[in-house]
Amino acid sequence: MAAVLRRSRKLWGRCLKHVDYTLVSSRSMASKTPVGFVGLGNMGNPMAKNLLKHGYPVIATDIFPESCKELQELGAQIVDNPAEVADKADRIVTMLPSSPNVIEVYTGPNGILKKVKKGSLLIDSSTIDPAVSKEVSVAVEKMGAVFMDAPVSGGVGAATTGKLTFMVGGVEEEFTAAQELLTCMGANVVYCGAVGTGQAAKICNNMLLAIGMIGTSETMNLGIRLGLDPKLLAKILNMSSGRCWSSDTYNPVPGVMEGVPSGNNYQGGFGTQLMAKDLGLAQATATNTKTPVPLGSLAHQIYRMMCARGYAAKDFSSVFQFLREDEKEEGQ
Amino acid sequence: MAAVLRRSRKLWGRCLKHVDYTLVSSRSMASKTPVGFVGLGNMGNPMAKNLLKHGYPVIATDIFPESCKELQELGAQIVDNPAEVADKADRIVTMLPSSPNVIEVYTGPNGILKKVKKGSLLIDSSTIDPAVSKEVSVAVEKMGAVFMDAPVSGGVGAATTGKLTFMVGGVEEEFTAAQELLTCMGANVVYCGAVGTGQAAKICNNMLLAIGMIGTSETMNLGIRLGLDPKLLAKILNMSSGRCWSSDTYNPVPGVMEGVPSGNNYQGGFGTQLMAKDLGLAQATATNTKTPVPLGSLAHQIYRMMCARGYAAKDFSSVFQFLREDEKEEGQ
Amino acid sequence: MAAVLRRSRKLWGRCLKHVDYTLVSSRSMASKTPVGFVGLGNMGNPMAKNLLKHGYPVIATDIFPESCKELQELGAQIVDNPAEVADKADRIVTMLPSSPNVIEVYTGPNGILKKVKKGSLLIDSSTIDPAVSKEVSVAVEKMGAVFMDAPVSGGVGAATTGKLTFMVGGVEEEFTAAQELLTCMGANVVYCGAVGTGQAAKICNNMLLAIGMIGTSETMNLGIRLGLDPKLLAKILNMSSGRCWSSDTYNPVPGVMEGVPSGNNYQGGFGTQLMAKDLGLAQATATNTKTPVPLGSLAHQIYRMMCARGYAAKDFSSVFQFLREDEKEEGQ
Amino acid sequence: MAAVLRRSRKLWGRCLKHVDYTLVSSRSMASKTPVGFVGLGNMGNPMAKNLLKHGYPVIATDIFPESCKELQELGAQIVDNPAEVADKADRIVTMLPSSPNVIEVYTGPNGILKKVKKGSLLIDSSTIDPAVSKEVSVAVEKMGAVFMDAPVSGGVGAATTGKLTFMVGGVEEEFTAAQELLTCMGANVVYCGAVGTGQAAKICNNMLLAIGMIGTSETMNLGIRLGLDPKLLAKILNMSSGRCWSSDTYNPVPGVMEGVPSGNNYQGGFGTQLMAKDLGLAQATATNTKTPVPLGSLAHQIYRMMCARGYAAKDFSSVFQFLREDEKEEGQ
Repeated sequence: MAAVLRRSRKLWGRCLKHVDYTLVSSRSMASKTPVGFVGLGNMGNPMAKNLLKHGYPVIATDIFPESCKELQELGAQIVDNPAEVADKADRIVTMLPSSPNVIEVYTGPNGILKKVKKGSLLIDSSTIDPAVSKEVSVAVEKMGAVFMDAPVSGGVGAATTGKLTFMVGGVEEEFTAAQELLTCMGANVVYCGAVGTGQAAKICNNMLLAIGMIGTSETMNLGIRLGLDPKLLAKILNMSSGRCWSSDTYNPVPGVMEGVPSGNNYQGGFGTQLMAKDLGLAQATATNTKTPVPLGSLAHQIYRMMCARGYAAKDFSSVFQFLREDEKEEGQ
Repeated sequence: MAAVLRRSRKLWGRCLKHVDYTLVSSRSMASKTPVGFVGLGNMGNPMAKNLLKHGYPVIATDIFPESCKELQELGAQIVDNPAEVADKADRIVTMLPSSPNVIEVYTGPNGILKKVKKGSLLIDSSTIDPAVSKEVSVAVEKMGAVFMDAPVSGGVGAATTGKLTFMVGGVEEEFTAAQELLTCMGANVVYCGAVGTGQAAKICNNMLLAIGMIGTSETMNLGIRLGLDPKLLAKILNMSSGRCWSSDTYNPVPGVMEGVPSGNNYQGGFGTQLMAKDLGLAQATATNTKTPVPLGSLAHQIYRMMCARGYAAKDFSSVFQFLREDEKEEGQ
Repeated sequence: MAAVLRRSRKLWGRCLKHVDYTLVSSRSMASKTPVGFVGLGNMGNPMAKNLLKHGYPVIATDIFPESCKELQELGAQIVDNPAEVADKADRIVTMLPSSPNVIEVYTGPNGILKKVKKGSLLIDSSTIDPAVSKEVSVAVEKMGAVFMDAPVSGGVGAATTGKLTFMVGGVEEEFTAAQELLTCMGANVVYCGAVGTGQAAKICNNMLLAIGMIGTSETMNLGIRLGLDPKLLAKILNMSSGRCWSSDTYNPVPGVMEGVPSGNNYQGGFGTQLMAKDLGLAQATATNTKTPVPLGSLAHQIYRMMCARGYAAKDFSSVFQFLREDEKEEGQ
Repeated sequence: MAAVLRRSRKLWGRCLKHVDYTLVSSRSMASKTPVGFVGLGNMGNPMAKNLLKHGYPVIATDIFPESCKELQELGAQIVDNPAEVADKADRIVTMLPSSPNVIEVYTGPNGILKKVKKGSLLIDSSTIDPAVSKEVSVAVEKMGAVFMDAPVSGGVGAATTGKLTFMVGGVEEEFTAAQELLTCMGANVVYCGAVGTGQAAKICNNMLLAIGMIGTSETMNLGIRLGLDPKLLAKILNMSSGRCWSSDTYNPVPGVMEGVPSGNNYQGGFGTQLMAKDLGLAQATATNTKTPVPLGSLAHQIYRMMCARGYAAKDFSSVFQFLREDEKEEGQ
């Protein structure tokens, strides 16, 4: 039965591209099968809301009951634990802080796998070690269900406006089905390859992002000390081979660019400790695969030192501030 | 007299923007005052040729007489040493390998300053320590002449086609005069600020470039080992926050992009030892100004290690090859 | 019954210190209870032999049957798997390559815990993540047995001559019992604290060792290039604050010291890939505990790059060779 | 005349080894020729006092007149500038903060070389770039005098008690003459080779010292977080291959050792900014000689970051404090 549902859902997914979207959005909620959601934190909460907005009945749970209230008021059905979610929904999205949480939510005593139906589609949007994604996937497959990793890029803002980017790993034939749900929550849904490659893509991007951000901060700081005007230096870099996202879109030097955290005392944005976490994952996967990542590794250490020195909650572009000479302290 | 020439040249420079360009290019050579050129190496040679092409009589010299032959055949007047150049030309461009050469060419026993005329414009396109540019500038000013640093970005190819980018430091009022000459040799001429800021901009750009290149190489290598297709990974990075010039324009992974050195066994391009030299300059200026540049510093060390391991003459994107696991060697 | 055996063994352990050792060594084999041994690789094989030499009956196993032959000829009883070892011995030493092997040998389908007797003493001498030691310890305790981690310092030579150093973590009351066995195989047995601290001490030592070795190599190389005689430089460092084990006991520069791998083309000693493995563990524990280890992390990367460049099987002091300028390749 | 004096001094120096030392120490002050001293800062002041104590008339100068008062009261003759010192003494010791000061004091308008006598012995105890030592040496030789570089290890305390270590570079035949003076101020006087090798030895030692100190700090911090007692960990390292001067003589963890700056809130000792300066010199010489020093380079960056974060005046072992997780700030 679930398999049948599953198949019809996939056809549905394919058709969606061709139908008149106003028709779709006017459909009554009852006509869509429910979607489970586990993990209603800063990211999960707005993501689940976007599923509701797109007309999906949502069956949700979180270990903190208070996290569920808002969604409940918006019409979601709140249940006790992941197993209950799996009992009531055959498509489930999970959004959790770290690998141990994912293992618990899937394979724990009240985990999804206790009651998962054959043919279910389980999508994990947490950012975790790709090796854990693979392990969970094996366990999911043994139950006759399908697992995909689909970590996101973009923060709470993008989650709220439904503009996340999803990097998806899993069996290619299931991608369309996943895409149907993920497009409700994101602007880009990219298929990356086998299970774990979604995580791999996410981790790789963030490692290079961190390197670019620290590199841009060092460079801007050095240039300023050598007498260059920061805006002019940014302009020169951006028309030259030094150009990167951190120099042209998210410049870490206050005053160079508007609408970025550097202009707002490094409030908002992507926190230093979250970057440190992602770099820790990059480091772990590099170690496990015996891949040298010297700059990635040093970037990890710098963000770790920043956490130790009071920058944990600031945007990760605050590395410019961290590296900048604190003139009152400087002697000799 | 030279001062008068100088002034008229400056007016001329200003007018150029408004005159009909076809008129200018049809002028006879005789109507242009000669330009001196010191340093006819791989870069200087095509640069001087472009001055000839634009109708400037060229008075040139090089410590290696054989370097002068080609230019002589094209009509340049070859003289014995920089002092002789200064005797015959009041606008001089210098293009030399390193700081000591620049000091020698300007302040040595047969240096430019021995015979420089008051009001002369001396433009140094070498990439050297900005502190040396400032020292030379002070010595030049004492002789009543003007010094500008104008290092280039772009290699032998860009020098040949006249597509270099010049980053110019010096007194702003003289910029137009410098620009008149530099536009014969480059596509972009950017004013950066006081003397030394041209060098600063060049060094800053190349430091960030090196960081981006090593970072991209580590990231691509890690992604490939985690099962991602390199072209797909590059595409994902380039639409995300990991994007940089090295990932989207000069990708170091063979097969990802056409027309870049990674597709040609890292031949051509910008040599590892040249990058190591520029990173050494960045390191020196950072040390002198007490600026922390942790990634820039490690990038320098990595390119230095590569020189020690046989990569000196390969394009700097060969760091991908350097970091890649050499599988036949790997044990355990 | 096992508990009784256990208790008597502990008393025995305590008494040992006071008895005449010649008496002990003249005891017949029959009078000692058997010791299990799992993992007869390069290290495990000589360690198990030393137990035999000290009069302990040995019950051993290894996944590679051929690894067992030599020990069998010396009188050890070879069994099929770790569970069989646990069936026949209530003191077991394990010596395995990495964390997954340890998990398998203890908790796998034919693992020790399938047949372990209450009160058994299980000592793991593998070098693994301290977090895994703790996990295994919890599983062992649930079966009513005792687990200690006791990684070693010293290579195959020290294993053969019984001169290993054991760093032991576990309940303090059991230390004497462990010491009884470990002193048969090592010259130093150091109690470090709770389960996992043996691993922690080992990992910490090796991280600092790697840092000291690379630092010594960089320093010796720099000094030589600045014109210092290597023996003289080593002498100066060793009487000054730069002194470390790598400079005064295991100098990486050929010719400075006798009887070390640098004098023998970096053969023998402690392989680069083994150091890379230990540094990977250090990195993983640092990441998990959010501890900044910038030099430790870079040391890891350098040994990882060396593995990628053909140094995997050479002694870890070959980093001197890796960093040394390869003059034939150097240009500019 | 000076040459005669010089020669007799050299004979004297050679004889010293054979004469009865009690005779020497009973000589009256009048029988010793004066010694010049330039630079009466924190180090120079106690060094010059020790020359006075050993019976040498001292002719001194400093750019800050107030720095000269104490020495004047003790009987030194204070003159206006280095040239005046050279006019009155044919053995001169200089102790200055950095390369530009040394260049000024030797070759400036009122520099030593303006009035230096042939055959004079000029000893520079400043810590500077060996390349600058060589340059100054060449200028000194042109005047018929002899230059030696003799930087010190040991701080103000060792300078006061006359227990400095001098690392001496210069012509070997002059070493005995230098030694005669330097033994008044130091406990060890080590001949290192040609001019510049004294600096090289000093710089090399301090680079390895910095690496060992940061490495020890990282390691101790990691071990503590893994549950090891700091004193026990230090003990284990010190009996193992992790041992280094920073772990066994100057441990950076408060409470592990008595009588070191870590036990006194990192007051006293060797300041972070002084270490950063020496690492900058190491970096510069490594860059100039194209020597890869990855850990030395990162150590430089870490001490530079510490200066930027308020640690400039603290002892360099405060890197332990810098790296330690600041728990109140840590989130997630």
